[in-house]
Amino acid sequence: MPKSSIPAPAGKFTASDRDAVYKAIFTRRDVRDEFLPEPVPDTVVRRLLEAAHNAPSVGFMQPWNFITIRDQAVRDQVAEAFGRANEEAAAMFPEHRRSKYAALKLEGIRKAPLNICVTCDRTRGGEIILGKTHNANMDLYSTVCAVQNLWLAARAEGIGMGWVSIFHDADLKDILGIPERIEIVAYLCLGYVDELYERPELEVKGWNRRLPLDELIFEDRWQGES
Amino acid sequence: MPKSSIPAPAGKFTASDRDAVYKAIFTRRDVRDEFLPEPVPDTVVRRLLEAAHNAPSVGFMQPWNFITIRDQAVRDQVAEAFGRANEEAAAMFPEHRRSKYAALKLEGIRKAPLNICVTCDRTRGGEIILGKTHNANMDLYSTVCAVQNLWLAARAEGIGMGWVSIFHDADLKDILGIPERIEIVAYLCLGYVDELYERPELEVKGWNRRLPLDELIFEDRWQGES
Repeated sequence: MPKSSIPAPAGKFTASDRDAVYKAIFTRRDVRDEFLPEPVPDTVVRRLLEAAHNAPSVGFMQPWNFITIRDQAVRDQVAEAFGRANEEAAAMFPEHRRSKYAALKLEGIRKAPLNICVTCDRTRGGEIILGKTHNANMDLYSTVCAVQNLWLAARAEGIGMGWVSIFHDADLKDILGIPERIEIVAYLCLGYVDELYERPELEVKGWNRRLPLDELIFEDRWQGES
Repeated sequence: MPKSSIPAPAGKFTASDRDAVYKAIFTRRDVRDEFLPEPVPDTVVRRLLEAAHNAPSVGFMQPWNFITIRDQAVRDQVAEAFGRANEEAAAMFPEHRRSKYAALKLEGIRKAPLNICVTCDRTRGGEIILGKTHNANMDLYSTVCAVQNLWLAARAEGIGMGWVSIFHDADLKDILGIPERIEIVAYLCLGYVDELYERPELEVKGWNRRLPLDELIFEDRWQGES
């Protein structure tokens, strides 16, 4: 058998390499406002998308597409669609949280020089997909793994990223010409950053507290409230 | 304002640190059979779960729980539930793929010394969640980001991980005592590995081919088939 068809020695990580992976994980932030205007070079965008494309996918389905958006007119339209949805969102919160919600900046669609829309083609690879037979969400989950790869790679490149989820999908599909059968998984804003919050912005701004990890771990079976 | 409440200088990554992050991303595999029997020490499991807990979450909701499963009797029950579902799955494939499907090893539930079930509490943090107002899946997607963080951290620790998705949720909930309102997002098998496939196992074994990344990238709007 050719070498690549059997398992090969797993490359070990030095302590320093391991720490670099943890550094990316622990210092990654959802960035909304710290974007610098300088463009992200094509070679760097390519590395980020290679990282996304190397995510795990159910049945090796690779259901994702990546729409890179730099055009200002398109970003303006997307920002307007966000604005309309965000007004609806604000009205959903109880009154005592509404002004706090309105004060939060939740997207960098116009400010970030690069936006990326990540989609999932739920029909790719046929009707029966290995690993998706008993969980219909697995193709969406694979696509989310690609987003998280992209996020961590961006952090390592000095690029901040924010995930914007406050849209009506129909608006985004209309603006970007996305077919009905394709599901939008994430709309991402990216740009170089000099500064980042040291803790999640929603924690810093008192929206929610960090939960103690100990309370979230159970052994051998569920031990919380039923 | 205290220092942590405003953005601080973003720690830069050296070229070597950046390459370590890419190494984790590009050499991560879905592991089914290469697990070594030695237990994963508690301190290492803790680091993996800290990595998962530092995933992004919509509205800083942190909807996840982690059930660590080492008990052999529990893993035996889970393996049996997988076996039943997998027989159903095999029967769904067209005849020319069925024998190939049956020859694939798709889980390491008994062989891996550690299993982790990752769940999503969709009711955590109240009814209206920032960022989830227009996309009800966002809490599930946050939980998937936690899984991918865990996967990459595991790779950096020399630990292989496999995601098993061929179950009836009701079986797993019954075995693990998971309440109805909680959604199971992932069932993971983990253990140290000396060897890994150099390319995805399903590619190596001819189940599916790697798609060319160029065909998956569009500029400014969707450019594929509608």
